[in-house]
Amino acid sequence: MAQEEEQRKKDEQLMAKAVAEAQIALEAGEVPIGAVIVCNDRVIARAHNLTETLCDVTAHAEMQAITAAANMLGGKYLTDCTLYVTVEPCPMCAGAIGWAQIKRIVYGARDEKSGFEKYAPGVLHPKATVTGGVLEEECKDLMQNFFKARRKHG
Amino acid sequence: MAQEEEQRKKDEQLMAKAVAEAQIALEAGEVPIGAVIVCNDRVIARAHNLTETLCDVTAHAEMQAITAAANMLGGKYLTDCTLYVTVEPCPMCAGAIGWAQIKRIVYGARDEKSGFEKYAPGVLHPKATVTGGVLEEECKDLMQNFFKARRKHG
Repeated sequence: MAQEEEQRKKDEQLMAKAVAEAQIALEAGEVPIGAVIVCNDRVIARAHNLTETLCDVTAHAEMQAITAAANMLGGKYLTDCTLYVTVEPCPMCAGAIGWAQIKRIVYGARDEKSGFEKYAPGVLHPKATVTGGVLEEECKDLMQNFFKARRKHG
Repeated sequence: MAQEEEQRKKDEQLMAKAVAEAQIALEAGEVPIGAVIVCNDRVIARAHNLTETLCDVTAHAEMQAITAAANMLGGKYLTDCTLYVTVEPCPMCAGAIGWAQIKRIVYGARDEKSGFEKYAPGVLHPKATVTGGVLEEECKDLMQNFFKARRKHG
């Protein structure tokens, strides 16, 4: 139980770093999603959504974190890494997570509308585990406030 | 019927350009997959798989073609474009194709093992159409010969 509690605390600390990335996205007018990749308790990549800035639908936080982590490690497989992301990955990102063989995925808010768990449940590595709901309210609020403000001004 | 025949010929001509890209990948030691994106009968992007060269699982032919086409058009939605790719897209690429709102996808060889039609059938735009089997033998031979040679030397 003590071990579970310790893991939960560690997950929240690392998710807070992903949330900080999401906030950078928000300030840039992007859908506020952030991600970090951790290897042996060390953050090796941080990224946030840049689809508007780069005018590129593939520039999701997770995609860029995967590219950066592979670059950092000098190898394209991220077998011993954990991905922290503020929102449940979409099928594109989940596909990339599967190709990279990431074994643990931790996300904040569920994405009922376009998350991979609904649209592409079989794309992760067979041994991958998924933990959802870490700092859920914080991650969800970021998204809801963004879309509420956009509807008001859009 | 004459119109269908004309479309088939046009598809084969454009797929031949994707095959040429796949051959460039092959020469670089990459899994031989190529893609082109066409808008109003004009090729606006060409790309081939670069996962080994870039040490990046996200560097599939389709992903790079989508990024290049958006860059070319100055907008991230490729609503009026057709994607030609030598092999059925994986869920990651199909997810990107969905986000880019590409309405027509033409592929060469089926990918029974990791194609999107099995793992993520619902990720394309609801109005998207898919045509498979264009220059199928050529596209399949490229892949089979690559993997046969790799098994022999690996």
